[in-house]
Amino acid sequence: MPDEPATGSTIRRGEARERILQAAASVIAHRGVRQMRIEDVARAAGISNGLLYYHFGDRSGLVRAALEHANAQAPSTLDSVVGDGTDGVRSRLVAALLAELDEAPQVRNNSVVWNEVSASAIFDPALREALGRVTDDWNAKVVRAVEAAVADGSARAPGGAADAAEYLTTMIEGLSLRWLAGTMTLDRAREHLRAAVEHVLPGTAE
Amino acid sequence: MPDEPATGSTIRRGEARERILQAAASVIAHRGVRQMRIEDVARAAGISNGLLYYHFGDRSGLVRAALEHANAQAPSTLDSVVGDGTDGVRSRLVAALLAELDEAPQVRNNSVVWNEVSASAIFDPALREALGRVTDDWNAKVVRAVEAAVADGSARAPGGAADAAEYLTTMIEGLSLRWLAGTMTLDRAREHLRAAVEHVLPGTAE
Repeated sequence: MPDEPATGSTIRRGEARERILQAAASVIAHRGVRQMRIEDVARAAGISNGLLYYHFGDRSGLVRAALEHANAQAPSTLDSVVGDGTDGVRSRLVAALLAELDEAPQVRNNSVVWNEVSASAIFDPALREALGRVTDDWNAKVVRAVEAAVADGSARAPGGAADAAEYLTTMIEGLSLRWLAGTMTLDRAREHLRAAVEHVLPGTAE
Repeated sequence: MPDEPATGSTIRRGEARERILQAAASVIAHRGVRQMRIEDVARAAGISNGLLYYHFGDRSGLVRAALEHANAQAPSTLDSVVGDGTDGVRSRLVAALLAELDEAPQVRNNSVVWNEVSASAIFDPALREALGRVTDDWNAKVVRAVEAAVADGSARAPGGAADAAEYLTTMIEGLSLRWLAGTMTLDRAREHLRAAVEHVLPGTAE
């Protein structure tokens, strides 16, 4: 990788990346992936086009990085789901899954980014590999949480952890699409997600 | 409405509409709603731009009509689900729901159109009303089929017909998005849909 170009700025490398990724999420959330222009993201991040290209290579690299960033910030991929706690893992997993459906701007922006990259991948094979990778990563983290919930006795997974995780993450994508497109309220989406959890990951105390 | 413009063609009114809508579905399926150009649709349909504008008013009118056309052709909205048959309504409804996930070009194109309009509605409030209307229509048709399946004794709907229908159509949207984006096989999507049906619309013979 070439040396980082001089920018006249004192922002550090990781900080610049983070600012660019948040700006990209915001631009995508307002206009969509296909309307995202590099110069708008650079302006929103307060950095030069050159620094943006330095960090992400090209437009496609920025879209993939925005998707990975959205995935890394997803509530249900947080390590705290499986970490120590006084309550069972199941209740923390349920809370983390429900937190994917939330009006908070960062959650909503990440949800739009995820949906936009998915919708764009239908037409852009270059995005499919990255999308497949983050989808696998999301599923795998939910699988680990489901297994931990079964192991600590707080849940059962009658159809297996892998099926339960993929079923739930797919349902979240369907619910998010309706919520973001305005055809379902957030409350209703959360009700359906609670029902889906009862179906594939019933609690043991009931 | 103004008189239909002379086109030098003998195609009839309904035929022209149908050709335009199929051409629009095909263009959207290959490029997306946001990349759809009126002149490409007119060329694919073999009609003039003027005739297309005559039938649909503007670009937004064409997108809404393409969505309504996709909805009208959806297997699970077919009247035959509830009509006469020797088997129970449930098995016909399950078959119709599964038929939404199919490689047949017309099914796939309609699925892309539906997903594209949903994704575009996030950024385009003008599409939301039309999307809300066809989503309500789809849900209502599945509700009627669920009620008929309960009435003929072939299924139970423990959470009620309205919840079951919305749950299933939302799951189909999530599964379609993964299938179209290439992150889930069609077989796997159909497995998850069968599981969802077992959850909210169990059969009575099991």
